[in-house]
Amino acid sequence: MKSYDIAVIPGDGIGTEVMPEALHVLERTAELCGFGLKFRTYDWSCETWLKTGKMMPDDGMSQLSQHDSILLGAVGFPSVPDHISLWGLLIPIRREFHQYVNLRPVRLLPGIPCPLANKKPGDIDFWIVRENCEGEYSQIGGVFGEGTPAEGAMQTAVFTRYGTDRILRYAFDYARKLGRPHVTSATKSNGLFHSMPYWDSRFADIGKDYPEVRTDQYHIDILAARFVMSPERFDVVVGSNLFGDILSDLGPGVTGTIAVAPSANINPERKYPSMFEPVHGSAPDIAGQFIANPIGQIWAASMMMDHLGEPEAANLIMKAIETVLDRPDAPRTPDIGGTAGTKELGAAIKAQI
Amino acid sequence: MKSYDIAVIPGDGIGTEVMPEALHVLERTAELCGFGLKFRTYDWSCETWLKTGKMMPDDGMSQLSQHDSILLGAVGFPSVPDHISLWGLLIPIRREFHQYVNLRPVRLLPGIPCPLANKKPGDIDFWIVRENCEGEYSQIGGVFGEGTPAEGAMQTAVFTRYGTDRILRYAFDYARKLGRPHVTSATKSNGLFHSMPYWDSRFADIGKDYPEVRTDQYHIDILAARFVMSPERFDVVVGSNLFGDILSDLGPGVTGTIAVAPSANINPERKYPSMFEPVHGSAPDIAGQFIANPIGQIWAASMMMDHLGEPEAANLIMKAIETVLDRPDAPRTPDIGGTAGTKELGAAIKAQI
Ligand SMILES: CC(C)[C@H](C(=O)O)[C@@H](O)C(=O)O
Ligand SMILES: CC(C)[C@H](C(=O)O)[C@@H](O)C(=O)O
Repeated sequence: MKSYDIAVIPGDGIGTEVMPEALHVLERTAELCGFGLKFRTYDWSCETWLKTGKMMPDDGMSQLSQHDSILLGAVGFPSVPDHISLWGLLIPIRREFHQYVNLRPVRLLPGIPCPLANKKPGDIDFWIVRENCEGEYSQIGGVFGEGTPAEGAMQTAVFTRYGTDRILRYAFDYARKLGRPHVTSATKSNGLFHSMPYWDSRFADIGKDYPEVRTDQYHIDILAARFVMSPERFDVVVGSNLFGDILSDLGPGVTGTIAVAPSANINPERKYPSMFEPVHGSAPDIAGQFIANPIGQIWAASMMMDHLGEPEAANLIMKAIETVLDRPDAPRTPDIGGTAGTKELGAAIKAQI
Repeated sequence: MKSYDIAVIPGDGIGTEVMPEALHVLERTAELCGFGLKFRTYDWSCETWLKTGKMMPDDGMSQLSQHDSILLGAVGFPSVPDHISLWGLLIPIRREFHQYVNLRPVRLLPGIPCPLANKKPGDIDFWIVRENCEGEYSQIGGVFGEGTPAEGAMQTAVFTRYGTDRILRYAFDYARKLGRPHVTSATKSNGLFHSMPYWDSRFADIGKDYPEVRTDQYHIDILAARFVMSPERFDVVVGSNLFGDILSDLGPGVTGTIAVAPSANINPERKYPSMFEPVHGSAPDIAGQFIANPIGQIWAASMMMDHLGEPEAANLIMKAIETVLDRPDAPRTPDIGGTAGTKELGAAIKAQI
């Protein structure tokens, strides 16, 4: 029997509340599909940092590298500055494991209240391919003239050809694989004088290798507006680290799935484990109440199984989510208009499988 | 009689089509309110660039500096790279005239189809205060290793204390002036390691001088999603050059007013002329058909009159726009669901005044 060895990092806040639901669903799916699953839980989190001064142990990355895959909850604590907590865990994992693809679905699901008028499930259904290792997210820069009137901060974005080309190729390949030969690029070459014209030129160049794939590009400002005005138009949208980040929260915002959408951090070469997480954060405002929606975490688990080569298991989970959401009597957490708790919704999905 | 001397730059594409409507409306308003207006038109545009290699003459800025104010249409031509056309006209004007505030309303108007469900005029009504002179829009950087596998591009954002503090203060002052003491800051301190933590620290510091103003801050990704999910919540939103740019297209996207919204580039000290323009671009796809919506340009003219110290004139224009839009028989351009042309809608607004 095939078996998969998963590193589980519940993290902080609601991360620790939604994770068990995903694990239960995974276990049930494994039984049905006939594969094994081994979970090893790591308590790396802001809580750990407050105790030890480290988000993960010194050999954390090498521990993780033993696993087939990583399932992450959410990391973040109000008392720990984001740029410490994230650059001590999430971002090093993405970078050192060369998870240079951040793949996120934007999909209108049944039974989820959509903020847009006159849309029904199926109307909105596309993918965001985000560069995940370089670009605007950078440690290059700093504060100068501190404490003087000439004070300021600099921040340098770096777009390597290596990093740019590989994400663009992934986007084109993905559009091909989906059978939806259309890639939209997010740019801002009219304002970001160096980086974005470079991005555009690479997009044009790589596109030549995919003559059957239709391409278009929009400046990020108008593209964001188009996500609201005409979200039906998109198939695969590719963006830099920052633009992809913005678009992949905005997309779920538009489809009402901000608490529901997953995020796959993928190393396509499979040299390193990939990491799967919900789009939502640790949500300190509702943590401890067990009312968080577990679907983001469960959908992330579905994407993980797909990546691990178990598409049947992935579909089973996804179908269960959609079937439960579509049921009028389904338990619904407050974010999707109900009063049910995390466990109830999780249990309903598990039972559906 | 008071008189104002306005530099008029229609620019390219639909810019040249919507501008006359704004001028007619302004003339009518001046008659009624009893002030004079002198227009001087400059043909600076991509068309000029194709002929002369310059977007404006060498002494362009000094010509403009003679005027009380600048009314701009839109600049951009498919055959002229954006980073040439804009860095040759729009961006130098913003910077050399220290128009460090870009002020943009996000407002649900009557009679404009709104992409969001269950919203009515009045529900969404807030202001975006965007930094307009520095930040991510920078010429610092370039391409390295060109033509080699180690090729790439770098782009450096610069946030000076001088530039950051003045825009933050403007936002707080503006919230005070509106009587809506609530300022929301756009950040991304969890990804942009240097610039955004600096921005946040200045926001916290300046906020201390406005103890009665409530503050909050969101990362740009979730803030974009909130523009869709809960746009009622905002009063004044302050953002860097790039974040403000994105939010101030997204906001009008959410309210259906992308072809209608204005943009004021303000030098608050009034040492230099300020510049008023519609949010929309030159729209080469519909240029020449005279079907562009002139309201963005007319609303920009209203903001101009307000800035010039004629609030009565500004209100008169704004009221006329709203009254016409609210009329079931009003001429409507295609973008707002009708078949009327630019001139008809413009004439209706002028007649309403
Ligand atoms: C044309 C472009 C440079 C400009 C900007 O990004 O500032 C435009 O999008 C705007 O918002 O006025
Ligand atoms: C937490 C933060 C650093 C992260 C990001 O911006 O990448 C998050 O927003 C995400 O999209 O996964």
